[in-house]
Amino acid sequence: MPVGLSAPQQLYPVKGIRLAACHSGIKADPRSTDLVLIEIARGAVLSAVFTRNRFCAAPVLIAREHLQQEPGRYLLINSGNANAGTGQQGMMDARQSCQHVSSQFAVPAAAVLPFSTGVIGQPLTVDNIAAALPALAEGLAEDRWLDAATGIMTTDTMPKAVSRQLSIAGETVTITGISKGSGMIKPDMATMLAYVATDARIDQQALDRMLGQAVEQSFNAITVDGDTSTNDACVLIATGQSQVDIKPDNSEFIEALNEVFRLLAQAIVRDGEGATKFVEIRVDNAINQQDARQMAYTIAHSPLVKTALFASDANWGRILAAIGRAEVSQLDIERVKLFLGDICLLENGLPDANYHEELGQSEISKQDILIRVDLGLGNASATIWTTDLSYDYVKINAEYRS
Amino acid sequence: MPVGLSAPQQLYPVKGIRLAACHSGIKADPRSTDLVLIEIARGAVLSAVFTRNRFCAAPVLIAREHLQQEPGRYLLINSGNANAGTGQQGMMDARQSCQHVSSQFAVPAAAVLPFSTGVIGQPLTVDNIAAALPALAEGLAEDRWLDAATGIMTTDTMPKAVSRQLSIAGETVTITGISKGSGMIKPDMATMLAYVATDARIDQQALDRMLGQAVEQSFNAITVDGDTSTNDACVLIATGQSQVDIKPDNSEFIEALNEVFRLLAQAIVRDGEGATKFVEIRVDNAINQQDARQMAYTIAHSPLVKTALFASDANWGRILAAIGRAEVSQLDIERVKLFLGDICLLENGLPDANYHEELGQSEISKQDILIRVDLGLGNASATIWTTDLSYDYVKINAEYRS
Repeated sequence: MPVGLSAPQQLYPVKGIRLAACHSGIKADPRSTDLVLIEIARGAVLSAVFTRNRFCAAPVLIAREHLQQEPGRYLLINSGNANAGTGQQGMMDARQSCQHVSSQFAVPAAAVLPFSTGVIGQPLTVDNIAAALPALAEGLAEDRWLDAATGIMTTDTMPKAVSRQLSIAGETVTITGISKGSGMIKPDMATMLAYVATDARIDQQALDRMLGQAVEQSFNAITVDGDTSTNDACVLIATGQSQVDIKPDNSEFIEALNEVFRLLAQAIVRDGEGATKFVEIRVDNAINQQDARQMAYTIAHSPLVKTALFASDANWGRILAAIGRAEVSQLDIERVKLFLGDICLLENGLPDANYHEELGQSEISKQDILIRVDLGLGNASATIWTTDLSYDYVKINAEYRS
Repeated sequence: MPVGLSAPQQLYPVKGIRLAACHSGIKADPRSTDLVLIEIARGAVLSAVFTRNRFCAAPVLIAREHLQQEPGRYLLINSGNANAGTGQQGMMDARQSCQHVSSQFAVPAAAVLPFSTGVIGQPLTVDNIAAALPALAEGLAEDRWLDAATGIMTTDTMPKAVSRQLSIAGETVTITGISKGSGMIKPDMATMLAYVATDARIDQQALDRMLGQAVEQSFNAITVDGDTSTNDACVLIATGQSQVDIKPDNSEFIEALNEVFRLLAQAIVRDGEGATKFVEIRVDNAINQQDARQMAYTIAHSPLVKTALFASDANWGRILAAIGRAEVSQLDIERVKLFLGDICLLENGLPDANYHEELGQSEISKQDILIRVDLGLGNASATIWTTDLSYDYVKINAEYRS
């Protein structure tokens, strides 16, 4: 059960983007869609980031290569097979898939970016893709965002999509995006993918910067268990068809964009398998950004903290031990303050005089939990989102494949 | 149930070391011992290392301070209470405990090193210690190593002790040691403590080096979940009473010492709560030692790898993903070889031609498992030991305190 995650609200079409999804046969279940095509109008600007895992899947390598050669016109995304750990055959299959889209729409093969998510080490059945393409092309429409969100799902229990409209200089600008992933808890099945488009007009340099910033505060700020996938990718497209120019200093637009990214990322955590809690970890007043993030991740990845969260046990000793072992450049335990929501647990590295178990207990029993650490050293902050560690996490990950 | 861990074999006394253990009342259960005293003969040389966690418990701070002032003559170890997160009161309590031993034996208080392990955030009942000391002093004897090993236990299911004798230049040299800890999986209960003594004569500088080396290959090479405790400590004593001089280049002695440390450390992993597997992770042919360790730890800490181990599932995709995301200075995936025991899973970053599931399955179903990664880049190696991640791990850590 996802933690506080509801079905997508209204999804506004983005002028210049058409989408389609179908069942091609890559997934066995005939009721589940497994192939998505996103068409991008000529003249759009596209920016993309990919997994930092050094074992990249074939489609990641091909997509990176194609990005250097042609403006992206088609995104071809299959779910059910990651085309990873597949060697030269996998590279050929990814190229072949792009070739089929190229023939269908009479564009260069390098204008097609392939994405795959699903099981590792199985050959991709390109014939399924080829056979499904004509119908997919037929089905392309501006209002198919929810279909696309559903088509890229693997172990997700819910489609993930967010849309915002804002008025800039009297014109309406739309941002709509979809994501998939169950909190990266299965690199072999739960690649993180996200596709966000806006009809704003943004130049390449600005778009690259916006994507980098947005990802840093969203997909790079979520963690379930520290594992990354061989196939992770995130794409941001600006079609420019609203005729509204957006400069990098437009804070209204940037905020809306960041919000879309953040909600798409948080949805992945909320849908993390086995998750019973949605946990925000905020580290304030660190000496620098890197220390703040390092501290937040050390707490987020501690299995002891995570099992205490699962048990709704305000076990501050475990958080304290995680703080103490974080590899940060500076730590003065006598300045550390620790909060659970608004409740102060520790001040100056010691239990707060007013703290008693019942206070912490009522806070940690909530579904959405905030752990806040004040390091009292500087003014850098970091926020990340994570889940607890439950029986179901072990069950899902131990029984998968068996 | 510990994984392949048997009761301690014969424990040889070490001339110059006397030990005693009793029930002082710090633990509630009257059948369990909770206070250990180790007496070190005058003239011995002592070396110690402590937790790197920056939230140190009071006894760690006092022990460090005393080590600077006087040769250590008495180690006072209580289990059941960590005297951590106890502020100024905790410091006074630790000093007071040393003061009692000082009065009992007419030695300076700084000749007493205090150690505590148990619950965090509770005041230490020094009166219990004071009341128990006379009987403890009375009971001191050379053949009480097993009693001491039992007295320092907290969540351990078995006492951990190892002893070796070797003949050097016609003389017998003894090394005997004890340890406690359930794989660091509970910083609030499972401090790692170890005390090793030899009757060899070793100077301070050599002893410090030997301890550093031995710890690096033993207690610093085990991990259950990456957490460290506020109270971890390891002490090595050379009483010199065998009259055998040992220089730092005596490989026979060094090997025996390292073996004692390694077995004491491995015993902690084997007794890791919830553990059903004992896993050795070896990384060979790394460009440097740091990369080798980093890679080994990334694999060891991956919850996905750990749950696959629990499920006896030879899921190489998860190991591959962990290898790919390890923060090492260099990685060439086309050179990576991955082995499970003697079975080659991946060669040149791809599934080995001769590999099939049944081979991996039979290997991973064993109780003791070896995961070996060959990076093919240099000639540095690292070996660490860890466990799987089971339902019981979550159960024990979620239900503790509730």
